[in-house]
Amino acid sequence: MSFRIFSKPLRNRSRSRLPPLSSILLRSFSHTFSQFTRPTFGIAFDIDGVLLRGDAPIGGSPQALRKLYDDSGVLRVPYIFLTNGGGVRESKRASDLSEVLGVNISPLQVVQGHSPFKHLVNRYENKLVIAVGKGEPAAVMSEYGFRNVLSIDEYTSFFDNIDPLAPYKKWTTINGANHEKTISNLAEKKKVCSERVDAAFIVSDSVDWSRDIQVLCDILRTGGLPGREFGHQPNLYFAHDDLEYQAAFPCERFGMGAFRIALESIYNKIHPHALQYTCYGKPNPLVFRNAEAVLKLVSSVHQNKMDANTETNHFKTLYMIGDNPSVDINGAIQAGSPWFSILTRTGVFKGRENHDKHPADLVVNTVEEAVDYIFKKEGIC
Amino acid sequence: MSFRIFSKPLRNRSRSRLPPLSSILLRSFSHTFSQFTRPTFGIAFDIDGVLLRGDAPIGGSPQALRKLYDDSGVLRVPYIFLTNGGGVRESKRASDLSEVLGVNISPLQVVQGHSPFKHLVNRYENKLVIAVGKGEPAAVMSEYGFRNVLSIDEYTSFFDNIDPLAPYKKWTTINGANHEKTISNLAEKKKVCSERVDAAFIVSDSVDWSRDIQVLCDILRTGGLPGREFGHQPNLYFAHDDLEYQAAFPCERFGMGAFRIALESIYNKIHPHALQYTCYGKPNPLVFRNAEAVLKLVSSVHQNKMDANTETNHFKTLYMIGDNPSVDINGAIQAGSPWFSILTRTGVFKGRENHDKHPADLVVNTVEEAVDYIFKKEGIC
Repeated sequence: MSFRIFSKPLRNRSRSRLPPLSSILLRSFSHTFSQFTRPTFGIAFDIDGVLLRGDAPIGGSPQALRKLYDDSGVLRVPYIFLTNGGGVRESKRASDLSEVLGVNISPLQVVQGHSPFKHLVNRYENKLVIAVGKGEPAAVMSEYGFRNVLSIDEYTSFFDNIDPLAPYKKWTTINGANHEKTISNLAEKKKVCSERVDAAFIVSDSVDWSRDIQVLCDILRTGGLPGREFGHQPNLYFAHDDLEYQAAFPCERFGMGAFRIALESIYNKIHPHALQYTCYGKPNPLVFRNAEAVLKLVSSVHQNKMDANTETNHFKTLYMIGDNPSVDINGAIQAGSPWFSILTRTGVFKGRENHDKHPADLVVNTVEEAVDYIFKKEGIC
Repeated sequence: MSFRIFSKPLRNRSRSRLPPLSSILLRSFSHTFSQFTRPTFGIAFDIDGVLLRGDAPIGGSPQALRKLYDDSGVLRVPYIFLTNGGGVRESKRASDLSEVLGVNISPLQVVQGHSPFKHLVNRYENKLVIAVGKGEPAAVMSEYGFRNVLSIDEYTSFFDNIDPLAPYKKWTTINGANHEKTISNLAEKKKVCSERVDAAFIVSDSVDWSRDIQVLCDILRTGGLPGREFGHQPNLYFAHDDLEYQAAFPCERFGMGAFRIALESIYNKIHPHALQYTCYGKPNPLVFRNAEAVLKLVSSVHQNKMDANTETNHFKTLYMIGDNPSVDINGAIQAGSPWFSILTRTGVFKGRENHDKHPADLVVNTVEEAVDYIFKKEGIC
């Protein structure tokens, strides 16, 4: 049996608000799925190096995903995208992925590195937090419910001369905002410059490392007030800690983990206390536990069940298909049963055999081969 | 007695070519200076945090320098600018300083962090070297005599997708060159991409840390051929190693030393062998030895001597006026006699007393106070 998932934009989702969405989907589609078979397995796909390289599909990824749907376009197998990347709202990511991969993806199926940040909303309420990274980090955080968030671009614009290299950077961010915007509102400037930053969130890859490391150190060493005296370090969160990842260039490129190393090594030179921070993202086992819950939800909303929180189905196997042994495979191994790890050769890992330190349950050339293997193993034609 | 120095642009200077310039100056001015008194002291001024903050004079610097000239504008005391900063040719720096400080400065008097790079020309001849940093690093190196030098901006433009963050940087360098220039000459591209980089020179502060660290690691880990296998690390040179320096912002800003820490900490994570490099600049005692030689030259060219290499005068005292204890004062202390260190409070150092770790011979509030002290000590009115 099968079930269909339609893309619906998420509005300030939090885990406690999932049932209303599932109810909506059930009321829409309960007449279609009353007789389907409860799926006993699910799939989590990494994106970069497995499905895409840059913006281009690789490894037969569109064909691989199409196999997860029947001929009439109804989904057969619950799957999600489990990526450490991010920088845009889950709804936008789902839309972009749908376009590139040629299948209809729901925001529910997109779990990004920063997705768990939404669970920290209550801790910060209306306190000033800074969001760092490519894309639209402040918009991501706003959608999660943070009420007083500035991107580091915006925050920096309130401090004259905070970046001595600014005159050498004639640039703008990709969304067109002027990097050197004119501060006409002195009251606003005074407010921001005197308001303590309570936390910094590295939502996605920093673009301007020199400025971001400088301003983050200014915030972290002073207890949240650049230009002032030393103070208690505000909390610092990273969406993930990937040292390298597979992008369009043949060799891996540095990721957020490299930025973290740079920031930490410099901060520890200028401050008597070592930098304190929390890293989310794979290979953290909690990410896999959350992924299992999301897969159950994806599965359960189409099983004519009224309460998505009930343990309506237990997966016998959950497949993690990834390209980065230290992130994807290591994470699946740490998470344990029911996770089964599959390593592809289209990304970070390019070896002939298996990875020495983090050996996967299976090594394949491409994601399409991975899906074929899964179907064969699960007895699906 | 006194002597005059006129600004003359340097043309591919090297230390072995100094005598012709001195001869030119002597022939021009020998009739003026035949009866002057041999100066027994000289002064080396740091720039940032002593004479300027950003582009603005501080500490009474124009008045302080004017005291080094008599009423008719003839120089009374040999002095130089001894700075770790740089990024432009010495001739341009002299011109810029002259304009800001209101005195006529010769390129001969400007010793920047990268000035000693000129002594490495013979080692690299026509080999490909990369120049990194704000300003015009490739032009600086070309003027020193390097025949096959590319800025990291130019070099990067030949490699597609080498910087995955490039799409997020809508920027150009300050001299107007397009960061994403179109490569119409495929032959040129093929040549550069297959030509081994023999050395990388960090001439001045890197502007785009994320890209520069990525591309430098690509060069260094592969023996000079990004995208290829591991190879012997090319030589790497830094113009200096200042962790922080005083710019326009009230608190110190990160300098080249911070960039070096970031690059080194990341490289050492991805490569089995630790990064090898050479740092120039203060507090290296060789810099002070060279500064003494330059001061002797500045002094001797106006003493009606035909051979500038003769030990025509020995300074009893050389004054180093700086704001950074670990760089300026530490360097003078290590260099020893005849160096006398004076620490100002207008830059990195802001303490009431002296610096604990690197105590200066004298601590003053401003550079003008420093000059007044020197004149009093030397019995000059």
